[in-house]
Amino acid sequence: MFNIALFGAGRIGQVHAVNIAGHQETRLYSVIDPHLTSAEALAHQYQAKIQTTEEAMSDPDVHGVLIASATETHADLIELAARHNKMIFCEKPVHLDLERVRQCLTTVKACQVPLLVGFNRRYDPQFRRLKNLCDAGVIGKVESLLITSRDPSPPPVEYVRVSGGMFRDMTIHDFDMARFIVGEEPCAIYAQASNLVDPAIGLAGDIDTAFIVMKFPSGAMATITNSRRSGYGYDQRLELHGEKGLLTAGNIKENSVEFWGESGCTAAKPEHFFLQRYRDAYIAEWCHFVDVMAGRAIPETSGIDGERALYLADKALESLQSGKEIKLSR
Amino acid sequence: MFNIALFGAGRIGQVHAVNIAGHQETRLYSVIDPHLTSAEALAHQYQAKIQTTEEAMSDPDVHGVLIASATETHADLIELAARHNKMIFCEKPVHLDLERVRQCLTTVKACQVPLLVGFNRRYDPQFRRLKNLCDAGVIGKVESLLITSRDPSPPPVEYVRVSGGMFRDMTIHDFDMARFIVGEEPCAIYAQASNLVDPAIGLAGDIDTAFIVMKFPSGAMATITNSRRSGYGYDQRLELHGEKGLLTAGNIKENSVEFWGESGCTAAKPEHFFLQRYRDAYIAEWCHFVDVMAGRAIPETSGIDGERALYLADKALESLQSGKEIKLSR
Amino acid sequence: MFNIALFGAGRIGQVHAVNIAGHQETRLYSVIDPHLTSAEALAHQYQAKIQTTEEAMSDPDVHGVLIASATETHADLIELAARHNKMIFCEKPVHLDLERVRQCLTTVKACQVPLLVGFNRRYDPQFRRLKNLCDAGVIGKVESLLITSRDPSPPPVEYVRVSGGMFRDMTIHDFDMARFIVGEEPCAIYAQASNLVDPAIGLAGDIDTAFIVMKFPSGAMATITNSRRSGYGYDQRLELHGEKGLLTAGNIKENSVEFWGESGCTAAKPEHFFLQRYRDAYIAEWCHFVDVMAGRAIPETSGIDGERALYLADKALESLQSGKEIKLSR
Amino acid sequence: MFNIALFGAGRIGQVHAVNIAGHQETRLYSVIDPHLTSAEALAHQYQAKIQTTEEAMSDPDVHGVLIASATETHADLIELAARHNKMIFCEKPVHLDLERVRQCLTTVKACQVPLLVGFNRRYDPQFRRLKNLCDAGVIGKVESLLITSRDPSPPPVEYVRVSGGMFRDMTIHDFDMARFIVGEEPCAIYAQASNLVDPAIGLAGDIDTAFIVMKFPSGAMATITNSRRSGYGYDQRLELHGEKGLLTAGNIKENSVEFWGESGCTAAKPEHFFLQRYRDAYIAEWCHFVDVMAGRAIPETSGIDGERALYLADKALESLQSGKEIKLSR
Repeated sequence: MFNIALFGAGRIGQVHAVNIAGHQETRLYSVIDPHLTSAEALAHQYQAKIQTTEEAMSDPDVHGVLIASATETHADLIELAARHNKMIFCEKPVHLDLERVRQCLTTVKACQVPLLVGFNRRYDPQFRRLKNLCDAGVIGKVESLLITSRDPSPPPVEYVRVSGGMFRDMTIHDFDMARFIVGEEPCAIYAQASNLVDPAIGLAGDIDTAFIVMKFPSGAMATITNSRRSGYGYDQRLELHGEKGLLTAGNIKENSVEFWGESGCTAAKPEHFFLQRYRDAYIAEWCHFVDVMAGRAIPETSGIDGERALYLADKALESLQSGKEIKLSR
Repeated sequence: MFNIALFGAGRIGQVHAVNIAGHQETRLYSVIDPHLTSAEALAHQYQAKIQTTEEAMSDPDVHGVLIASATETHADLIELAARHNKMIFCEKPVHLDLERVRQCLTTVKACQVPLLVGFNRRYDPQFRRLKNLCDAGVIGKVESLLITSRDPSPPPVEYVRVSGGMFRDMTIHDFDMARFIVGEEPCAIYAQASNLVDPAIGLAGDIDTAFIVMKFPSGAMATITNSRRSGYGYDQRLELHGEKGLLTAGNIKENSVEFWGESGCTAAKPEHFFLQRYRDAYIAEWCHFVDVMAGRAIPETSGIDGERALYLADKALESLQSGKEIKLSR
Repeated sequence: MFNIALFGAGRIGQVHAVNIAGHQETRLYSVIDPHLTSAEALAHQYQAKIQTTEEAMSDPDVHGVLIASATETHADLIELAARHNKMIFCEKPVHLDLERVRQCLTTVKACQVPLLVGFNRRYDPQFRRLKNLCDAGVIGKVESLLITSRDPSPPPVEYVRVSGGMFRDMTIHDFDMARFIVGEEPCAIYAQASNLVDPAIGLAGDIDTAFIVMKFPSGAMATITNSRRSGYGYDQRLELHGEKGLLTAGNIKENSVEFWGESGCTAAKPEHFFLQRYRDAYIAEWCHFVDVMAGRAIPETSGIDGERALYLADKALESLQSGKEIKLSR
Repeated sequence: MFNIALFGAGRIGQVHAVNIAGHQETRLYSVIDPHLTSAEALAHQYQAKIQTTEEAMSDPDVHGVLIASATETHADLIELAARHNKMIFCEKPVHLDLERVRQCLTTVKACQVPLLVGFNRRYDPQFRRLKNLCDAGVIGKVESLLITSRDPSPPPVEYVRVSGGMFRDMTIHDFDMARFIVGEEPCAIYAQASNLVDPAIGLAGDIDTAFIVMKFPSGAMATITNSRRSGYGYDQRLELHGEKGLLTAGNIKENSVEFWGESGCTAAKPEHFFLQRYRDAYIAEWCHFVDVMAGRAIPETSGIDGERALYLADKALESLQSGKEIKLSR
């Protein structure tokens, strides 16, 4: 049984708390959050301790840490945990600054602790199945990938201001997905974007609607379409074209009920947002981290993946600002 | 080139006129209709003659007749045409009285002319494909068949009064379909029905909503669900269950456009009614009759099929009135 | 916090154990099963006690019992629990003999304890949503209901022999569903059936494929189609036609991945069986029973529903054996 | 009745011949094709004349010309027809060289004859319906458009060599579609492409797989995904996102039959190629040209549209070759 110290008792921390408690090999051991009321509520529900960062890090009974705290604390907590020899699960991103990410990963490497970065979508059963069918040769050689990723509605502008911008905050998941599905590192990137959804986002210097095109050494291409607002739920789809056909992974609808009447057929929209859509992905992700802790696996989404996705976000921004396709280094 | 005399210039006659004119081996030679204005309009459009029944029957240039006139004239015209050695395409039903149908078929047999009865649905590409896949063994031995057959809206009560009742007028197509798909003659039948759609139909002594269950010698079963009103277009579906799985033939939607918004996904309803839904079936049916006339085929839907479907309609009514399952003769 | 004694540590008992443990207001207090290994495994997993029937019934700390033991023990355990003033959740059926059911319900009534009979499908979110939309008037007056209920593969013949026959074992869920959706008691029933799936089932005196037609006082009708084998997963669908259109509740597919290639589009089949398909229904059912225990609700599926569904099963069998439609008493 | 001279008796000429003959207001008057056997076959079928170009142009009984001959003859025939005061329907493209197109349009303008350029997809009922719903405000302000356009299989390399390249030959339809749907002229364009399908196409200097991104003055964006091979039929789809939701226009499947078995559900693939998919579009296009000839409408797809789409193709190529986003003039 692995004892887990959970940093961050907010929305995503709560998702992980359920999964930690529900897994036969893990226990929610302690909760750490400067917002004490949240920490206490969560600790009480699962009969866990309240700890400070220092207590958790130096507690020999803590085997692993789950970092779901504010973004700016991630890199520091990772380094601290690595130095205390804890196994680390960290929500994305490691940090919004690429250099800081690289420093942090050097520390992790030196300490030889496993680090899993929470690119939850890779663990989604739909996308995983598509990837497995592709690897099994169902569509032959990969030719083009279309990633649709649209949030149901835009975040508050206060969030946007500290988010690092849409590419680093939202598209970063899609950059990781493209690398995962195509199985290569892209060699060129182009981005086009607009501020169409909320003028306040534009005033904050960000964009809310984007198309990104990537090219890979094999000649395969990928495109990402993003929007901060769909109007019809969380839109998360893949289309993967290969020499022998097409694999698609569609949305999951809220229900299977349809009404047929004079004005046609009305069916349910996609599940509302990531808490619903990726519920099973979060569970699978946690199971994988338990396998990592138990020595049965190495992280499928490691620090390198966190770094690479951030690099692509930076380069997409450079393309958007320069109006040019940007060549990428390996 | 076969010259065709068309009896009846109404709605269904017009459908056939297009197909006769559009086929490379047939010509609309003449139109016969007591309602002269209709006859003239149709004749003019296709540069055909106006003829009386007698003229058409005795005209040696007429090779085939297409009987799309009022139901009560069908049996007489069939016999007349048979005696004049014309090849015969007759819209269903041959007659509403089973004895009269049998008489008529005896005459046709004696005259040795081909007779095709217009069970158009057998020629529908969807149902035909399902039947072909079934015959190819895709689902193994047939176990149960569900026929859904719902009109978009009820006919006027004047029509209902002379229709012979819903079983003889509407369900007759489904009886034929059940025989066609299962490939056996049913050995027992049960019917349950209500008057739910239009009280005037009930006052006219008819029903407008029905469930029928049939059993076949092999143990296979079929059910028919009918309604004179769907509220969402013409609902024409098959579900065929066998030992290895299920074959379905669904509706064709009016278009492929969908709207996704706050209240879910809205898509088109099925095509409105039989003129749209069975457009391709009418063309295929006519092609088949041309093959019959040219000696390349024998009628897939002959007088026997007309007789047998009417027999089932009569027995369904007997079941409904007696509250008993009725055993059927071969 | 309600303490629950669980009778039966088999497959369905295990499903309920998860839900009991996962609910904030209930605790798995004890497990009772003559097969001690199963009881111990389950008790150990949830840190519950092992008890005998007598211990559990006389233990004042047991607030509710969940009866998931062998069918023939249900009625005795219900009566015992009622006399000990425990609140009762019992898996269907109460008993396979209608007279015994009625006796049992009399005892329950005399003891004034709540009894919930486990017709899990009523708590399925899909069917519940369809019912709610119907009640909200979306399709106007109900006209006809089609229930499709097919198991993925037939049970072992040993099970069939003690099951009470397909109508009492499998169709009983559909009888309850018909009553729930239409909202009336049926006044006539007809059944047709065959032994097509497994000859051993026929040798055991049972059928494995059936069509049932019911009529309701309002004129509405319902049909049930059953098979012990689908070949493509668990097929659980509703079609509800009303004066303004159609409501359907479809299957949930195993995943949302599709492959498009030369031979068309291949998509996933429905979820495998009831443990998958009704996972959410079992959770909702338990939540409802907690509401009942807490006095916030009365059972939506009570002993009366158990009795009535069994009555319909008996009458369906009578119809099948007599070849007649059977009139039903209230 | 308008008499039509048809230039070109090949595949697309034959499509138009059917529609000319099938329209109540037009007659196939003559066929002009250097390949005399083809011309004769078509002329015989519709009882039309064989003419030379000169005869047709100077024949006062010819009211309109339909130019479906080889691409390099289009501009010359347009000018000739314009000078002879014939109304002109010309298959796309007017010419592969933008300057020649402009010259040609100047001539047409000077002669004041109507010219319709055959961007058939604008007349597709699916895309038209999507456009109409958009114009009716169903999704509010347009934000992004995704055009999927994939041929079932690549053309022979001989065709590729004289095609002007994929952008001018295939994508040109999608450029026109983007302008039609978004309702603005794009202000920037970027293209990325590969040779993945057939190495011979690469050796011929062309590409076969492409992503194109366009930006419009309003901030709206469009992307086009092209491939010379789908592997699953003709893939022609639109996704139009707006502030209130999404409109999609999907493929039309070859049939509505599904098979459900152990390996899931198998359904039909999209209709094979443009002759099937756009059959109704060609009919609607011809009806529109008849309206133009009759003075009831002006061409919805005129020479300007032909010029503009070619301009976009040229600029896409410039982007591909330079690796830069290209700013577009009005």
